[in-house]
Amino acid sequence: MNPSSALNLNIALIHYPVTNKNGEVIASAVTNLDLHDMARSARTYGVKGFYVVTPLEDQQALAGKLVDHWVSGGGARYNPKRREAMQLVYIRDNLEQVVTEIGQAEGREPRTIVTCARPQKGSVTYGELRQALSDGAPALLLFGTAWGLAPDCLAAADIILDPVRGAGSYNHLSVRSATAIILDRLCGEFK
Amino acid sequence: MNPSSALNLNIALIHYPVTNKNGEVIASAVTNLDLHDMARSARTYGVKGFYVVTPLEDQQALAGKLVDHWVSGGGARYNPKRREAMQLVYIRDNLEQVVTEIGQAEGREPRTIVTCARPQKGSVTYGELRQALSDGAPALLLFGTAWGLAPDCLAAADIILDPVRGAGSYNHLSVRSATAIILDRLCGEFK
Repeated sequence: MNPSSALNLNIALIHYPVTNKNGEVIASAVTNLDLHDMARSARTYGVKGFYVVTPLEDQQALAGKLVDHWVSGGGARYNPKRREAMQLVYIRDNLEQVVTEIGQAEGREPRTIVTCARPQKGSVTYGELRQALSDGAPALLLFGTAWGLAPDCLAAADIILDPVRGAGSYNHLSVRSATAIILDRLCGEFK
Repeated sequence: MNPSSALNLNIALIHYPVTNKNGEVIASAVTNLDLHDMARSARTYGVKGFYVVTPLEDQQALAGKLVDHWVSGGGARYNPKRREAMQLVYIRDNLEQVVTEIGQAEGREPRTIVTCARPQKGSVTYGELRQALSDGAPALLLFGTAWGLAPDCLAAADIILDPVRGAGSYNHLSVRSATAIILDRLCGEFK
């Protein structure tokens, strides 16, 4: 529980099913700094769990080794603040497993929310999502690696969130940056 | 010029002078993904130039090679959108050089703005800075690597910006994430 946050939010970084440059569905590789940056952003904004989703066993082993180093290995002693963030990371095979697991812990399955750099029909604004999340029911925000979440994954979500737009039409933020911005828009308080 | 942005903003990533874990002033190493992520965020929010500041020649050479790959090498053909972002990157020896260079291009030196994860006396809010920047005069926003900008660098700035706070007291975002959030707070438009 994060007493400082009213939202009941989890995030997932999806490595399968995502698309590559040519629109084909692939399983992408885990990137070290995705885990660090997104765990630190999750911890900053009171996110309950950060699920790293990949079906590839070698990638699960790599991610597991990395997380262990910072949670219980040398990294935990070197940087306890990094440990606090990395403790939020769970490595799972697929999205269904994550939804079931949160559902069991919370007593109801989370609403799934997808984000996409390209505009999608029926997407909600940040204000609308913030309002929807204020009921405190569990929610799971999905982020795609590579060229983004596969079309089936987008179509299956409960809610589609507006893209992050900056000062123009360029929409090629890293997933690390997009996560930080979206969490700030949903959970941040500032003047 | 970015016609879509009213602000006249530049950013700099400082590798010297910054502090290490023990508060000593050091020169930090350049991180590949800092350049990618911050260039993409800069491009997204209409930032004019992204200055990578390091006095270390080997680090300048490394950063230069990386930028060249994406601006004029194989990376430019592989991903033209990444090229658009990396074209904003300039590698410079020190902060004074950056201020002088922007001053020559703009006809007046930029206001320097520092950000710090720890609260600082006299810091301004995001709304106040957004208002101040709306005059269109040049500005340079500084980000520190490692454990943050050295005290002398903080003290010499024209403006200190409030820290990014999330849902609690944890304030250990990556510089990549902090940059993305701060640019969104200053330049982003969303509902």
